[in-house]
Amino acid sequence: MVVTIKKETDEAQIQNLTEWLESFNISIHRSEGEYETVLGLVGDTSHIDTDLIISLNIVSNVTRISEPYKKVNRKFHPDDTVIDIDGFKIGGGNFQFIAGPCSVESPEQICSIARDIKAAGANFLRGGAFKPRTSPYAFQGMRAEGLGLLETAKKETGTPIVTEIMDLSHLDLFENVDVIQVGARNMQNFELLKELGKTDKPILLKRGLSATMEELLMSAEYIMAGGNNKVMLCERGIRTFEHYTRNTMDVSAIALLKEKTHLPIIADPSHAGGIARLVRPLTLAAVAAGADGIMIEVHNDPAHALCDGPQALNPDEFAKVVKEANALREIMTKF
Amino acid sequence: MVVTIKKETDEAQIQNLTEWLESFNISIHRSEGEYETVLGLVGDTSHIDTDLIISLNIVSNVTRISEPYKKVNRKFHPDDTVIDIDGFKIGGGNFQFIAGPCSVESPEQICSIARDIKAAGANFLRGGAFKPRTSPYAFQGMRAEGLGLLETAKKETGTPIVTEIMDLSHLDLFENVDVIQVGARNMQNFELLKELGKTDKPILLKRGLSATMEELLMSAEYIMAGGNNKVMLCERGIRTFEHYTRNTMDVSAIALLKEKTHLPIIADPSHAGGIARLVRPLTLAAVAAGADGIMIEVHNDPAHALCDGPQALNPDEFAKVVKEANALREIMTKF
Amino acid sequence: MVVTIKKETDEAQIQNLTEWLESFNISIHRSEGEYETVLGLVGDTSHIDTDLIISLNIVSNVTRISEPYKKVNRKFHPDDTVIDIDGFKIGGGNFQFIAGPCSVESPEQICSIARDIKAAGANFLRGGAFKPRTSPYAFQGMRAEGLGLLETAKKETGTPIVTEIMDLSHLDLFENVDVIQVGARNMQNFELLKELGKTDKPILLKRGLSATMEELLMSAEYIMAGGNNKVMLCERGIRTFEHYTRNTMDVSAIALLKEKTHLPIIADPSHAGGIARLVRPLTLAAVAAGADGIMIEVHNDPAHALCDGPQALNPDEFAKVVKEANALREIMTKF
Amino acid sequence: MVVTIKKETDEAQIQNLTEWLESFNISIHRSEGEYETVLGLVGDTSHIDTDLIISLNIVSNVTRISEPYKKVNRKFHPDDTVIDIDGFKIGGGNFQFIAGPCSVESPEQICSIARDIKAAGANFLRGGAFKPRTSPYAFQGMRAEGLGLLETAKKETGTPIVTEIMDLSHLDLFENVDVIQVGARNMQNFELLKELGKTDKPILLKRGLSATMEELLMSAEYIMAGGNNKVMLCERGIRTFEHYTRNTMDVSAIALLKEKTHLPIIADPSHAGGIARLVRPLTLAAVAAGADGIMIEVHNDPAHALCDGPQALNPDEFAKVVKEANALREIMTKF
Repeated sequence: MVVTIKKETDEAQIQNLTEWLESFNISIHRSEGEYETVLGLVGDTSHIDTDLIISLNIVSNVTRISEPYKKVNRKFHPDDTVIDIDGFKIGGGNFQFIAGPCSVESPEQICSIARDIKAAGANFLRGGAFKPRTSPYAFQGMRAEGLGLLETAKKETGTPIVTEIMDLSHLDLFENVDVIQVGARNMQNFELLKELGKTDKPILLKRGLSATMEELLMSAEYIMAGGNNKVMLCERGIRTFEHYTRNTMDVSAIALLKEKTHLPIIADPSHAGGIARLVRPLTLAAVAAGADGIMIEVHNDPAHALCDGPQALNPDEFAKVVKEANALREIMTKF
Repeated sequence: MVVTIKKETDEAQIQNLTEWLESFNISIHRSEGEYETVLGLVGDTSHIDTDLIISLNIVSNVTRISEPYKKVNRKFHPDDTVIDIDGFKIGGGNFQFIAGPCSVESPEQICSIARDIKAAGANFLRGGAFKPRTSPYAFQGMRAEGLGLLETAKKETGTPIVTEIMDLSHLDLFENVDVIQVGARNMQNFELLKELGKTDKPILLKRGLSATMEELLMSAEYIMAGGNNKVMLCERGIRTFEHYTRNTMDVSAIALLKEKTHLPIIADPSHAGGIARLVRPLTLAAVAAGADGIMIEVHNDPAHALCDGPQALNPDEFAKVVKEANALREIMTKF
Repeated sequence: MVVTIKKETDEAQIQNLTEWLESFNISIHRSEGEYETVLGLVGDTSHIDTDLIISLNIVSNVTRISEPYKKVNRKFHPDDTVIDIDGFKIGGGNFQFIAGPCSVESPEQICSIARDIKAAGANFLRGGAFKPRTSPYAFQGMRAEGLGLLETAKKETGTPIVTEIMDLSHLDLFENVDVIQVGARNMQNFELLKELGKTDKPILLKRGLSATMEELLMSAEYIMAGGNNKVMLCERGIRTFEHYTRNTMDVSAIALLKEKTHLPIIADPSHAGGIARLVRPLTLAAVAAGADGIMIEVHNDPAHALCDGPQALNPDEFAKVVKEANALREIMTKF
Repeated sequence: MVVTIKKETDEAQIQNLTEWLESFNISIHRSEGEYETVLGLVGDTSHIDTDLIISLNIVSNVTRISEPYKKVNRKFHPDDTVIDIDGFKIGGGNFQFIAGPCSVESPEQICSIARDIKAAGANFLRGGAFKPRTSPYAFQGMRAEGLGLLETAKKETGTPIVTEIMDLSHLDLFENVDVIQVGARNMQNFELLKELGKTDKPILLKRGLSATMEELLMSAEYIMAGGNNKVMLCERGIRTFEHYTRNTMDVSAIALLKEKTHLPIIADPSHAGGIARLVRPLTLAAVAAGADGIMIEVHNDPAHALCDGPQALNPDEFAKVVKEANALREIMTKF
């Protein structure tokens, strides 16, 4: 970490700051420039809050040189993390499709979709039981009952289930859930992340709407700091000024996160675009950029398509996208 | 709400959509344009999810004409909400300063600051017991113990206390807290909002880092939908591309929210800028724009200023800002 | 276009607005809601400024239902535009690589790179003669002399040249340039766009740093309104909060612009990420999303790589990316 | 400037970079950390392109410690710049109102407004002759004829005129213009900035829609580097996710720019909010934050208010805002 001190600063204040920094077991290399004094901090600076330092009156600039994340950092853990769920692996060259409806609605619906997506090539079933909705007047999901229906579908098809938790008070209900999803709006719900760090459940952590990659990695660090290494990151689109799409899929994040971390990276083209007909091009783009998995919304009943699937494909469309994505992946293995 | 259907759309699909919309007790006025069919929806559309409709393949555009919020809407509740906390009123022309340290650290610290800020003109004491931190390795606050120290300070000075809740599992601990703050990162923690809606505690709801005013109002609607009318909104800066400041205070939000809602609007210039020397100009600007209250970080001990107050004023600086802000408010009452 | 008028509005003001709108040959369908009056505007509303209307005190909302662009609109021109430059076609299924150095530096440099990129499979040579630089103290390009060197390289290799214009006063110098590039910072330099609309040169129009797709299309409309139909759009990354990359490539824009317009869409992965090692994944992602061409920075001299190629590949790396991109395109034609 | 080199980097590459940096008359202080090599650059680094360095494969991080701007920098020019235009001063404690219509429409209109705004307390008349419009089909201004009408209004009232230039080819037409405005979309039209730097006209430089303060200062540096010291900066709102307002006025920029530079800072509350009824609170907020001047749109003819004044006040409303702003300024001088 490099801290730049304004020229006119009183020596006592610099000493004050230096001593405080040294109390974190950090050694300070000081150099005097014409207009500034520069402090180079050597040691483990991950405990130091840059926001705090940058706002001091005597400080004009702070740069973190080492990343503030450690356990998620590929620098210290060069090998890809591979997560094995009922024999289905994600990461380290293992690719998976996760598919299912936006909301769980009925036993027939979820079981039918589970069969369809499995037939099409997806090994994981997703479905929302607890639904985060902007409006208190919108449907909030079947909640505990929805989790039960997901378990039923798993029993029938053998597909592990992926579903979102909205509050840590619900954690007991997720005992039979295979992968717990943390939604974009909860990416910095630190109390929830800490509790998930104490479980041994695989976690699918979605990037917040305007979160940087570093903030996403720090939230993953919260989970890993608790002892749970089974974390997958999910790029689901970020908020931009563009209003033709709901969000903007950050395809460079897929490539770059794979450099920064050993954790698997999943892309969610359904939410990223918010438009069903963008799912195909965004899936292919995410695969081309190196994603370890793709999560897609699929609905099954044309009569109910209206309410369950704004950004959803039907099973035939999904099967076509899987086939094309696999063709791309196959050609890419030859590069 | 106005829904535009693409020209080439099959009549059966339009009928399907129309019937579904009518199932919400909405009547549809349909008109045919040269390139589109336009459906005008008349009735209470607050239960309808625009995101869902806009992503249908047959739809090219959706506009909500009525606001999706009702209980927070000034249109239906023209009178200012006035919240009375131990005889200190906020809203409807009543203005308050809320002040205190970033984190509660010790009985001496919090009681000393409480006395100082009260002497300077603040009627409310703020202080963080549970601290949301980006890094799992950073100080997470004194938690329950910190709440106890705030209560002690209140006993001594009579200043009601304002402090942040991070998870609904902590709600029991907040029994003696006068105003429960919901932080920016929890603005869309819907399960938490629902529970707070069942309490009768005044809530200080902070705007999310990249939330629109409408999203802030919808989160307030969650609380009011549960029956709790004592909600204050807090503008604390939004994320922008600017990196000279931590966030950008949206001063137009202060003026505009007062049009849209009857709820009091508080500004937080300490977090908005993230720089202590911006607190004064941002406070004056927020007052000039019509804020009902200002929340400012104040530290008391120069020796510890480093750790507790990056964006904090000392009591003397705070007293000066209060005096200037009051002078501005006084002149403004004559306009 | 749908204009919502506030309920309390004076009838005379509504009449005033209605008459003004009718003066644009637009007919008004008026309907009264419980809380608002809604005006539906039928006719060619492309001449009406929505910003103006939305800011009227009596108006609470304006929605444009027809797109404000006409000549660039696929709705009115369903067939892909194909641009033929010296026999090399772009658009309508024709794909091209455009490659070359950030800045033209010397005859040897530009001719050597021209040969290399041609050998690797690129038919177009790009190179900056006029360089837009944030700092007045940075190298501003070889300017007119640089254009001359590009012409020399074209004579030798037969590759048409693509280079950026920075001001319309330079237009005469661009007589022998094959494709005139308009940079991101000039996307809304309307005087320049108008003049380029009067030429018959193919134009490569880059998306502004925080421009929406609609704004990009409106800038293309400026060129086409002048009579020049040979416009290519270029996605080169938008500004977001992410700081691990210089910009964020909006891969959904590639897919969505191809729906909205008949113009060819080029992707620029070098500028989008700002990091050489992201060029490969972003190129593959852009191809997978349906781009009609890719523009890549290539340098040739390792000794000078420092100054000419922060986001540049060397010729071997470029050749590898071309090969992989072509393999992807080939497999995609079979879908 | 501090450059961090990745640990695994080849020594020859570090030497290569070091020598290149030294060719700019910069001395390098090198220190080896556990995971990185850190190069401290001492000297005038304003000629060095950080974007270039950060994108090198061997570099993990670059921080500029000295600001890249020199002539606009308060550090080197501590005294406020005061610009005197026909005896009316701006900056250094001198405050001015600039007011007038969005577009010049007729001699009667512009002269009438000129008289009104002068009577209300504004010393400068603004009015658009060349209008940057998103759509090629929208009114583009009276252009040269409009400039003539502004001169007529000045002859009658004695108010210096402020109007926008859109292209440097029009520069000759601006001979009698007192202050040349550079619009937000031209903030990085570097060729235009260079030419304006060669004139001795005062320049009102507007901040780009998504420009950082540093980018604004660098564009001012372009003008000053050419020898023209009479530059005023204008905060006119930045693009954010908020859609209730057209832009978001960055009030902290007013306070912070006054720290960073000696140049006067003007606020434009009309464009910042895009809504006439926000002009008053935003004006007061800008004054409270320390602005040196305020630019406001004023229309005069209710019959034409529709087309010329979406974000405009009428003269009476303007006079009231001037009075209130002056009362605020007066009380603030006593602080």
